Amino acid sequence: MIVDGLFITFEGGEGAGKTTVLRTLAEKLQKEGRPVLATREPGGSYIAEKIREVILDPAHTEMDARTEALLYAAARRQHLVEKVLPHLEKGGIVLCDRFVDSSIVYQGFARKIGVEAVRELNMFATEGRQPDVTLYFDISPEDGLKRIGDNKGREFNRLDRESLAFHEQVRNMYLQLQREEPERIQLIDAGRSLEEVTDTAWKVIAEKL
Amino acid sequence: MIVDGLFITFEGGEGAGKTTVLRTLAEKLQKEGRPVLATREPGGSYIAEKIREVILDPAHTEMDARTEALLYAAARRQHLVEKVLPHLEKGGIVLCDRFVDSSIVYQGFARKIGVEAVRELNMFATEGRQPDVTLYFDISPEDGLKRIGDNKGREFNRLDRESLAFHEQVRNMYLQLQREEPERIQLIDAGRSLEEVTDTAWKVIAEKL
Repeated sequence: MIVDGLFITFEGGEGAGKTTVLRTLAEKLQKEGRPVLATREPGGSYIAEKIREVILDPAHTEMDARTEALLYAAARRQHLVEKVLPHLEKGGIVLCDRFVDSSIVYQGFARKIGVEAVRELNMFATEGRQPDVTLYFDISPEDGLKRIGDNKGREFNRLDRESLAFHEQVRNMYLQLQREEPERIQLIDAGRSLEEVTDTAWKVIAEKL
Repeated sequence: MIVDGLFITFEGGEGAGKTTVLRTLAEKLQKEGRPVLATREPGGSYIAEKIREVILDPAHTEMDARTEALLYAAARRQHLVEKVLPHLEKGGIVLCDRFVDSSIVYQGFARKIGVEAVRELNMFATEGRQPDVTLYFDISPEDGLKRIGDNKGREFNRLDRESLAFHEQVRNMYLQLQREEPERIQLIDAGRSLEEVTDTAWKVIAEKL
């Protein structure tokens, strides 16, 4: 596939602010008159939406972790082929909220399918199409959970601690991916103010334009 | 996974009679009082049925070949985990109409995704679980198409010839798989009478019991 556009993905744990930053940057690019597509899977692809419905069907209490990973990969494939690649082929910019790295971190690592197995599966789905650049929004789990949780200043309880350990693992896995591909994955300190984070993210993108 | 039962798959092109033979053998095994499950994907698994509906939705004119392969793998995974493995773990016999070999032949080869890519994808879906024995019902495309088509003795037209070339390729791919794994894949000459074919298939299974 010959692709001329710019494919940017946004990655990070809960409360890192990536979705908010994505929206702000998309507006900024649009105001500059650039052909930007802000999306996330299933992203309005009819087939991908249908696949998503199967994943989220509340009757599906018995869905196997690998079945789920295969369905996410199927929705990713269809969204990529229908939405992302056509926009890139016209020379456009695509900002995508989560992509393969999320599956590696959450399904491969957190759901214990195995990082290499999920990587291989997604190679099949994407035919090896990587983002040109990935913004990884790094934040400590404490700060991230504070942002999304209630901010009443109460003490951490047992559930919070479990959650914290989980998010710590997610963060470590993201950091490992970033060390493996420092060229593609740009680490952004998301512990600062939203304005500072947005500015940093904008600078990374502006360099690639 | 420790599995004690006997997992038998039935493979072959159109008109080879594998589905009819499967049914006859399942009845025979049942009469002998053996715990037999005759199935095919999605095989009554709720999730696998839902996935199948997505694949077959007539609104899906734009489904990518890899999306489809991922969905088939997802349905296979769920059917395997929900239906096949539990029956095998109880020591039962499973007769399954088509399995991974069909995907390799039809999606990998005929739909041109690539034999190795589809093999790898199915390794993910099955975690390498192979049938204990596979019966490959081999028939010449002429004879196979005669069996399923109209039998009015008319001449072959252009479409028939294209179809014939396609089925010839499918057969060659099956024969290649059989040469690669002669222990697992038992070649059965399906050009003979249904009674003879059933007898041969029965002998192969009886040896494994």
